Amino acid sequence: MDVFQDRIGTDQASRILQLALQSEGVQEATTSFLIHDLSRMQQRIESLQAVFPPNCLHALAIKANPLVAVLRHAAQAGAGLEAASIEEVHLALAADCRPERIVFDSPAKTVAEIESALELGVLLNANSLPELERIETCLSRMTSTSRIGIRVNPECGAGSIAETSVASKTSKFGVRLSEHRSQLIAAFEKYSWLTGLHVHVGSQGCSLKMLADAAVEIQTLREQIEAASQRKLQFIDLGGGLPTAYLGDDTPPSPADYMQTLRQRAPKLVDGSLDLVTEFGRSVQAGCGITFSKVEYLRPEQSMLITHVGADLLMRPAYMPANWKHAFALCDASGQLKEGAQSETTIAGPLCFSGDIIGRQVPLPAAQPGDWLVIRDTGAYTVGMWSRHCSRSIPSVLGYQATPSPNLVSLRQAETPQSMVQFWS
Amino acid sequence: MDVFQDRIGTDQASRILQLALQSEGVQEATTSFLIHDLSRMQQRIESLQAVFPPNCLHALAIKANPLVAVLRHAAQAGAGLEAASIEEVHLALAADCRPERIVFDSPAKTVAEIESALELGVLLNANSLPELERIETCLSRMTSTSRIGIRVNPECGAGSIAETSVASKTSKFGVRLSEHRSQLIAAFEKYSWLTGLHVHVGSQGCSLKMLADAAVEIQTLREQIEAASQRKLQFIDLGGGLPTAYLGDDTPPSPADYMQTLRQRAPKLVDGSLDLVTEFGRSVQAGCGITFSKVEYLRPEQSMLITHVGADLLMRPAYMPANWKHAFALCDASGQLKEGAQSETTIAGPLCFSGDIIGRQVPLPAAQPGDWLVIRDTGAYTVGMWSRHCSRSIPSVLGYQATPSPNLVSLRQAETPQSMVQFWS
Ligand SMILES: Cc1ncc(COP(=O)(O)O)c(C=O)c1O
Ligand SMILES: Cc1ncc(COP(=O)(O)O)c(C=O)c1O
Repeated sequence: MDVFQDRIGTDQASRILQLALQSEGVQEATTSFLIHDLSRMQQRIESLQAVFPPNCLHALAIKANPLVAVLRHAAQAGAGLEAASIEEVHLALAADCRPERIVFDSPAKTVAEIESALELGVLLNANSLPELERIETCLSRMTSTSRIGIRVNPECGAGSIAETSVASKTSKFGVRLSEHRSQLIAAFEKYSWLTGLHVHVGSQGCSLKMLADAAVEIQTLREQIEAASQRKLQFIDLGGGLPTAYLGDDTPPSPADYMQTLRQRAPKLVDGSLDLVTEFGRSVQAGCGITFSKVEYLRPEQSMLITHVGADLLMRPAYMPANWKHAFALCDASGQLKEGAQSETTIAGPLCFSGDIIGRQVPLPAAQPGDWLVIRDTGAYTVGMWSRHCSRSIPSVLGYQATPSPNLVSLRQAETPQSMVQFWS
Repeated sequence: MDVFQDRIGTDQASRILQLALQSEGVQEATTSFLIHDLSRMQQRIESLQAVFPPNCLHALAIKANPLVAVLRHAAQAGAGLEAASIEEVHLALAADCRPERIVFDSPAKTVAEIESALELGVLLNANSLPELERIETCLSRMTSTSRIGIRVNPECGAGSIAETSVASKTSKFGVRLSEHRSQLIAAFEKYSWLTGLHVHVGSQGCSLKMLADAAVEIQTLREQIEAASQRKLQFIDLGGGLPTAYLGDDTPPSPADYMQTLRQRAPKLVDGSLDLVTEFGRSVQAGCGITFSKVEYLRPEQSMLITHVGADLLMRPAYMPANWKHAFALCDASGQLKEGAQSETTIAGPLCFSGDIIGRQVPLPAAQPGDWLVIRDTGAYTVGMWSRHCSRSIPSVLGYQATPSPNLVSLRQAETPQSMVQFWS
């Protein structure tokens, strides 16, 4: 099985939980904590390196998991890092990622942020034609080693989830190819520092066909630009957006499937004639994470259990349950997987609003207070989207390493009431 | 006009913006900031005190606005504070609110949290019958000055917004009256320390009739409990949930309307025969706040502007645009209100996902980069629900005071890239 399809299973989750319960990381008062499987993340990064051409920079999307310790492990495994804000650029630097391996992609870059990115020498993708003018002004008063690209919207349609599909006509991202092809080509003739193209069609819910359609459009545009400007592009950034598995029957395409499709449909993109950049987030990180949260109360009449993470950790499953679902399991207080007859259970979080439900009609064995709820595939867009609603402390995050023997390291300590007071002061 | 209906208008917003632009609080690099009108908040708290009976504790919902400085001003104006988590209890203490004026209401209280609340002497509302057993166990090994109540679900139906309506049958909140009336009465006979009833039917989208229906149910239950247990209840906590105005034609009921309805429908609740507690959040705080965010880019083809706050500040308007909308205005770079022909504008935030849209078809005059977007009624459930998505810095929050002459104080400094690195380390 591809390492991208192989998520942390419930048996492994139970073993990790037992290890955690014996570690210093989990104390009597701990009500929830997250695990990130660093060994698995490393394997996935290595598999990307094996599958894609060697001149490819795999810049992991920081927003998927912004913990500095996670980013540092990723960079050590050979990944670059993609930043959606200037703050994320600083997270990447703090993780000892080299500037030329950092990609800065915000749609709202200020002049100060552009200047700072150019000074640092990070790769910069402009989101629009007006942003190119700002970059030109900045470069007129400074020099920079930054590679600079421009984001294109290939308008190859929206995927099944509107909120994360970014290549529709009304998207705020990129320059629309259907309207501005000639302006894009002219920009490359005008700005010699402009050497790359960026595309990102969306995330979960987008098909391989959409990703490939975008790649074909970009390759065509590249040829037109190279013909008109009489120079070679240096890089194409294909963005992120491989979907990942959340439920039992999800079978997302693997990076190998993606590469095969690219080889067929856009061979000149992957023949080594220019540098490639990717920006995978979810497909690398989601399946490396698992969350454990204690069952605190039962509400048998409502077939409901109340646990310690809710819409603060899992905002999209709470607010958009039709599109975003996780798989769950249940372990007893000692970490043993609970088996036996299952019934449909509602999983409620701790926040003071009704919508704070993170699982509906979830088949689970009979729960009791003190059990550990297991939430699978929480390595991406969970703690990184943490919401302050009700000001509950962010749980600790532990790193799991399979070798030399299974062990846990601290990636982030839990917040405390005292740190919350500081936060709001 | 009632102080609860009188929100910060666009003219006042422009004056406050001009004041802010001249203050130290706003610098060249500032891209957005929030204002909380402390004078207005004080007036509203005073108006609650004037309208409700004198033995009423108005415990403002901390989750609506958790800034310690805001809480301190509220406590100084005579408010108590309602905490949805043990962290919020600590925020209330940090704001110098006396423990007996703090109400602790989480549906997921651990034994350790219950013990800590009992030790502090804060008012505690149990969410369920099993929680009463936990409290009994705690009290068997300690003494406490805490007042203790139990939350009842009067099942008076859901309001127009499912996520914030909490009195439907499937709610995770409170003991269902239709099923457990006799057990509730028995609990008061059994536990002499149980002296109050708590109800909260929901928030925005709930009618005065629903609030009053709940009050009637509670008053009836009170009489039954007092008859059976041969003792008087000490308090009834009516919760929060008065709606507030967001758009021009919203006309929410005022606290005076609410009191009048209560006097008619449940006179014995408000005759001074027991202590009342309220837990208003939104209706007090929303209209005291206003957010200013710079227009960074225009996307004329999409009638769109890109600004510096998005789903990180306004999660619900982004994820649930049908139910949650704010009013907007536009000022120029010097803070003057922009007038002139309006056209329908899409307001996009800075986050890297398509759903990051905080206003749709908003009538606005022609914008240009450097203008200040004005977002009205952002005093509740905005920064307090802040999401880390893309790790952008929380903007600074300034307090506005009308007297002796209009002035601004710092309530919370803006985060920085450096503090973000610390946050994720
Ligand atoms: C520009 C850009 N690159 C990469 C990603 C990562 O996408 P995913 O996590 O789906 O792989 C995103 C996600 O929003 C993005 O906006
Ligand atoms: C128990 C409780 N009290 C008070 C409130 C405050 O409600 P509002 O802000 O609508 O007044 C809430 C809101 O969720 C709540 O859950």
